[in-house]
Amino acid sequence: MKFCDTFVLKSNELKEKKVFRDAIHDYIHVNHMIIWQLINSEQMQRLRRIRQLGGTYQVFQSAEHSRFVHSLGVYEIVRKMIETDWLKDQLSDYDKLCVMCAGLLHDIGHGPFSHSFEHIFNNDHEEMTVRMILEKSDVHRILSDMDEQLPIDVASIIAKKHKNPILIQMVSSQLDADRMDYLLRDSYMSGTTYGQFDLSRVLRTMRLYNGRIVYKKSGVQTIENYILARYHMYWQVYYHPTARSYEHLLGCIFLRVKDLYKNDYHFHTDMKYLLPFLKNEVTVDDYTCLDEAVLEYYFREFIHEEDEILSDLSYRFLNRRLLKYRELNEEDDYKQIQLIALNHGFDPRYYVFVDMQTQVPYHYYGMSGELSEIEILTKDGLCPLPEVSEIVYALIHSRKYKEDHRVFFPKEIKYEVQNI
Amino acid sequence: MKFCDTFVLKSNELKEKKVFRDAIHDYIHVNHMIIWQLINSEQMQRLRRIRQLGGTYQVFQSAEHSRFVHSLGVYEIVRKMIETDWLKDQLSDYDKLCVMCAGLLHDIGHGPFSHSFEHIFNNDHEEMTVRMILEKSDVHRILSDMDEQLPIDVASIIAKKHKNPILIQMVSSQLDADRMDYLLRDSYMSGTTYGQFDLSRVLRTMRLYNGRIVYKKSGVQTIENYILARYHMYWQVYYHPTARSYEHLLGCIFLRVKDLYKNDYHFHTDMKYLLPFLKNEVTVDDYTCLDEAVLEYYFREFIHEEDEILSDLSYRFLNRRLLKYRELNEEDDYKQIQLIALNHGFDPRYYVFVDMQTQVPYHYYGMSGELSEIEILTKDGLCPLPEVSEIVYALIHSRKYKEDHRVFFPKEIKYEVQNI
Amino acid sequence: MKFCDTFVLKSNELKEKKVFRDAIHDYIHVNHMIIWQLINSEQMQRLRRIRQLGGTYQVFQSAEHSRFVHSLGVYEIVRKMIETDWLKDQLSDYDKLCVMCAGLLHDIGHGPFSHSFEHIFNNDHEEMTVRMILEKSDVHRILSDMDEQLPIDVASIIAKKHKNPILIQMVSSQLDADRMDYLLRDSYMSGTTYGQFDLSRVLRTMRLYNGRIVYKKSGVQTIENYILARYHMYWQVYYHPTARSYEHLLGCIFLRVKDLYKNDYHFHTDMKYLLPFLKNEVTVDDYTCLDEAVLEYYFREFIHEEDEILSDLSYRFLNRRLLKYRELNEEDDYKQIQLIALNHGFDPRYYVFVDMQTQVPYHYYGMSGELSEIEILTKDGLCPLPEVSEIVYALIHSRKYKEDHRVFFPKEIKYEVQNI
Amino acid sequence: MKFCDTFVLKSNELKEKKVFRDAIHDYIHVNHMIIWQLINSEQMQRLRRIRQLGGTYQVFQSAEHSRFVHSLGVYEIVRKMIETDWLKDQLSDYDKLCVMCAGLLHDIGHGPFSHSFEHIFNNDHEEMTVRMILEKSDVHRILSDMDEQLPIDVASIIAKKHKNPILIQMVSSQLDADRMDYLLRDSYMSGTTYGQFDLSRVLRTMRLYNGRIVYKKSGVQTIENYILARYHMYWQVYYHPTARSYEHLLGCIFLRVKDLYKNDYHFHTDMKYLLPFLKNEVTVDDYTCLDEAVLEYYFREFIHEEDEILSDLSYRFLNRRLLKYRELNEEDDYKQIQLIALNHGFDPRYYVFVDMQTQVPYHYYGMSGELSEIEILTKDGLCPLPEVSEIVYALIHSRKYKEDHRVFFPKEIKYEVQNI
Repeated sequence: MKFCDTFVLKSNELKEKKVFRDAIHDYIHVNHMIIWQLINSEQMQRLRRIRQLGGTYQVFQSAEHSRFVHSLGVYEIVRKMIETDWLKDQLSDYDKLCVMCAGLLHDIGHGPFSHSFEHIFNNDHEEMTVRMILEKSDVHRILSDMDEQLPIDVASIIAKKHKNPILIQMVSSQLDADRMDYLLRDSYMSGTTYGQFDLSRVLRTMRLYNGRIVYKKSGVQTIENYILARYHMYWQVYYHPTARSYEHLLGCIFLRVKDLYKNDYHFHTDMKYLLPFLKNEVTVDDYTCLDEAVLEYYFREFIHEEDEILSDLSYRFLNRRLLKYRELNEEDDYKQIQLIALNHGFDPRYYVFVDMQTQVPYHYYGMSGELSEIEILTKDGLCPLPEVSEIVYALIHSRKYKEDHRVFFPKEIKYEVQNI
Repeated sequence: MKFCDTFVLKSNELKEKKVFRDAIHDYIHVNHMIIWQLINSEQMQRLRRIRQLGGTYQVFQSAEHSRFVHSLGVYEIVRKMIETDWLKDQLSDYDKLCVMCAGLLHDIGHGPFSHSFEHIFNNDHEEMTVRMILEKSDVHRILSDMDEQLPIDVASIIAKKHKNPILIQMVSSQLDADRMDYLLRDSYMSGTTYGQFDLSRVLRTMRLYNGRIVYKKSGVQTIENYILARYHMYWQVYYHPTARSYEHLLGCIFLRVKDLYKNDYHFHTDMKYLLPFLKNEVTVDDYTCLDEAVLEYYFREFIHEEDEILSDLSYRFLNRRLLKYRELNEEDDYKQIQLIALNHGFDPRYYVFVDMQTQVPYHYYGMSGELSEIEILTKDGLCPLPEVSEIVYALIHSRKYKEDHRVFFPKEIKYEVQNI
Repeated sequence: MKFCDTFVLKSNELKEKKVFRDAIHDYIHVNHMIIWQLINSEQMQRLRRIRQLGGTYQVFQSAEHSRFVHSLGVYEIVRKMIETDWLKDQLSDYDKLCVMCAGLLHDIGHGPFSHSFEHIFNNDHEEMTVRMILEKSDVHRILSDMDEQLPIDVASIIAKKHKNPILIQMVSSQLDADRMDYLLRDSYMSGTTYGQFDLSRVLRTMRLYNGRIVYKKSGVQTIENYILARYHMYWQVYYHPTARSYEHLLGCIFLRVKDLYKNDYHFHTDMKYLLPFLKNEVTVDDYTCLDEAVLEYYFREFIHEEDEILSDLSYRFLNRRLLKYRELNEEDDYKQIQLIALNHGFDPRYYVFVDMQTQVPYHYYGMSGELSEIEILTKDGLCPLPEVSEIVYALIHSRKYKEDHRVFFPKEIKYEVQNI
Repeated sequence: MKFCDTFVLKSNELKEKKVFRDAIHDYIHVNHMIIWQLINSEQMQRLRRIRQLGGTYQVFQSAEHSRFVHSLGVYEIVRKMIETDWLKDQLSDYDKLCVMCAGLLHDIGHGPFSHSFEHIFNNDHEEMTVRMILEKSDVHRILSDMDEQLPIDVASIIAKKHKNPILIQMVSSQLDADRMDYLLRDSYMSGTTYGQFDLSRVLRTMRLYNGRIVYKKSGVQTIENYILARYHMYWQVYYHPTARSYEHLLGCIFLRVKDLYKNDYHFHTDMKYLLPFLKNEVTVDDYTCLDEAVLEYYFREFIHEEDEILSDLSYRFLNRRLLKYRELNEEDDYKQIQLIALNHGFDPRYYVFVDMQTQVPYHYYGMSGELSEIEILTKDGLCPLPEVSEIVYALIHSRKYKEDHRVFFPKEIKYEVQNI
């Protein structure tokens, strides 16, 4: 047998189960030693220093939570799933442990200020998560100490290659523990109602069918509600233009650093934690060291750099001198605004940019077998969600998806931009 | 001048403002003597004995609230509306008072177990509300004591005939104080999340334009959220088949009483409070006396009537022996089930019925000037909601609206029905 | 063996577990056929027509919930208790069923408008609950159909005579499922925060010790919080003077009816459902018929009685013409107010009364073995709560308990009373 | 006239009022340009990088919020206070602006990881707040640009020296905007119920009397509830031993740095931002630069220092290898544990410490005129809270206050410590 037997698993159970208080799930229950150890691993503790919402807390001030607490929530939802009546006897103890670990660890590969950073440094957080699990790391050690096969199985769930589709669906699909936790959590923390949906009913209407997770027909409206919660959270919270402005500013700092590095600029700042990323030779250890505290420290240092662009952008970032924005009406606007910026001494490469947001409310794969499709159990067999939900059907056949096109620029040229 | 001057209105303000604690709005604020008097009127106090949700509390057990507390909530939302920055200087004190009274009183014409009762006794609750305000009643006295014109103006808001469309929109439109209160309240009381939406943001994005209430474009998604909240509350709560079963049972009792009365059946029960309804000669006083306590008393008495159908239906009603249901697949099913019922001695007229539910999520009137249309203020002028909301557009152009067809029948024939 | 064996119990489990949505517990889970049958019994359904809070909903308008939904909540808390790690293996399946039934049924003996009614008609709701379980009734039939011994065991829990103290503690003690549900529910429904406490933590710190329920020391503050929640709910909600005024009015109607009956007054109202109570010959069936709808119907009829006192009090009751009140400063005040009332033609026996409220925040029994004492597990063994809680200790050694003395009288003599 | 006239104040009002969404207050309303500017000042933005709860988020994982968002909440409560009926006409526009600024800025002098840092570096956050307002800083510039006197008046409120006691009471007393916000916020964010109390009712029962804020008698229980909320939050959340362990670890790092610096240890880490604190020559600018990101960066660097103690403590801190603890039974225990530590090579100065927590639930000043006393308006005049509240009276006359004595030590000597 390739993996640890039941005896080992049982002995891994904590004598006294631990709980963490949590604002979303009331309690996070930790029943296994290995989960406890993973929570205290360097990779997981690092997530405390990476905010869940990047720049969004510049608008929704109270949403300052980290990816760490979100990861605990994903783990807890996975744990609840495997304890439901319909699943508890359908998975081996080993598979249960694998999927709980995968839920907990699914975000460890996220970089600081995730999206801007990924964009400029070509970092893929999913790939990095897999590397952190498979290569030498605190997390890898904990997993392989229990069973050599464990890191491989946990990573394969995250990479969506595990042979048991149920485990993948729980962690990454259009209705997974990840999305369910972040909608509830981001909504609660930001003080908006948009992301609320009925988690306990989603869990109650889950069923197994032909070895996959599907949903009872009576759950369709709860799922519609969840789909729309996500749609509204995107437009109201995640894509809020002020949050976007903050992300853009961040992206420009990274871009400027990269450009300066390429041009052999002499940095006064000792950037040892960023160098591997600039050289594109990143180890798991390098990654584990880079968190938002380190970058915020660098931004503070950058203020004193001789390069005026880097210095100025960093000051703006730390002291919330965000860029202004307006709707982009015509393509030509963009060019005109770039010109105005240039005339005022702002390099448009770093000070003017266009943001196009769109969000597909539901990805329809039909009966292709794609795991991400939400399937509904009807008396005539399985159906993709849009076939039984009038609302989701309407959404995916909508004449067009909502789109936002905005252009961002420095406050200093606001009046001239208005007069275009 | 036709109506009371500012002096009278000011003097109507309570020296010490009163508040009621409320689970939805935290506090209901009563600042005027006349509002206080109306709350304590016979017509309003009667609403304490009429449940908001008819039979729905048979499924959502904790939703036992009355139309009285809902009416206070509608009043409170109207009061909040007229205190917003955009409205407070645009309405006369007199109009403000009128619309607060209209919000408070809008439901006084509801009968007990509203919909079934209306259906069988051809009662129109809106018409009755207007009569109660205009004819001799406690409410009429309070209003006309203040100003002769007041009952007429309050009634004309409710009848949607007032000359100021703003007042009508606040109380009856697709986004009015009535719907906003019942969604929040029914959702809170039933313990579901479906009806939650962002009331404070709706109020913040309201504006006046050409003498009508419209909404800022930044409020579109909040309104979408509200439209969908309503859609889901209908399907999840109001149309729940067990609630429908209860409503049907109730309707059948009323129908049987009516049929027996027509056929000169001798009732042992002293039905003096129902007689005017059977004779179709209902005064405002008759109406004020009829509440759910009276009907529940009658149902208890009916158990001892000689007529077996009436007795049996009443027993079922009081002791929750509801009818069973299944989806109606073919028209022919209905006939077969009627036949089975007949064979078992159940008169199908009272024991088998078909329920067809559909709900139009949004009524689109375009720019016809219909007050119920939700209009959005864009930089290109006013637009009906569906023109700027991808979701609402999709909903009203959906291939079809969701429909439910169900047939209800006595539990006693359950097995035979299954074998059709 | 006296009671049904495991086989019978297992077969009583529902194939498809049922749930009710609930605003407090999210879901009420029904796993056994017998629980389902009891919920649908005449005695339980009657509780839908008896409000949980008597007159309190006259002040806290949104608190209109019934004893029925509270009873479901008590059942659910009991169910959660027996599923905790520390209890699930310590009780037989039969005992578990007994205590769940006891939790569900503990309130069926409550009269309409409970406290005023009990007071005047010398009804003891606990005694009546026991009778309803042991004598011929729908509830008795359901219980004894399963096992002859079952009614006896369920009743003995409610009568606090069961041989297993754990079962009694769960249903009636200073920290029982009854109080825990009503604090959370009344608080939620009334829209106040006072009654909130941390139910899930109370359940987590429960332990068994020498065959009794005790609590871990780490739970002391959660329990303090609960004790104070109860203390504040009493003063802020249950003892609110307007609610008291309503209760007094109710008591006076009952008193007048009783007095008139003794004096052979001829009632026009057909009082068949009240007669057994006036004759003091009440059967379980009589009791099952009497609910608040019946009494509200009678009050409406009483308005037309010739006796002016009864007619007037009933009108006041139905239309919220409550009595006014003030603090009672000196004993002599009371006499003076009675005299004023008399001079205005109000019989003081029915129109003036004194209300003295006090509430003992915690009953201290020490180590007497009284089941109601809350005991804490410390490293030195068991301790009564006040020995380890500084707050509860302070409360029971307080110089005096808070007391409210108020006198109530008709609004018509308000000004003369002010001038005393 | 010393300060800016009404014209200036009015012109400071924002044309379009701004709002921030907030999880606690729904919206934070910003109506004045100067408040908007202060929010965006360097000193306020720095608070985003200082957590509200120091080490507590190590236990209550979801409580990751910053002092920035708390400061917005304090401002919002102050704003609500000055808009109540009883205060809005009693304060000049200038005083209103002063106290809103004071509420917003009251925490800017907090250091990173506030309490441990203050303890070791003898920093007084209140003194530093005053310096930041009076000396050259972004905040000072914004205030004095409006009016030269403004910084002085705002600072005098925070220093409790302003001539108008009302303004001081709002910001610093036993029932102030600061405490009210942090109880609600910390409770919400941590997912516990302990800190909840009825803010809207506290505001409703506030009155002015002889130029001071006092409370109506009907508000006594709401205030009791608040006092106890605070008491329980201290013991359940703020004094949680795991949080204390984290704080101690932090304190030891600071202590080690200080000791090494005194002994001329050569640091590899470039500690320029800490140097002024080690030299005890701190300017406002130095302070503005020091936030938790900087310290977290230093801790990461310290791991690579040659000094083993500093390196080890820093590793423990960043990767949550917290110290273990047990109750301190006898004084002698402490010495024994120190000895065990020493034997295992742990310098007890940095690895073993005793923590004594006590919390006075209410400071009683009687009628001394101390502004912090909560005074109640009764029909016999003003009374200190304990004279009318049985609960607060009992608390302050309790035989003793709750105390916790704990000793903390490294996990490595856990077993030996158990065997003492």
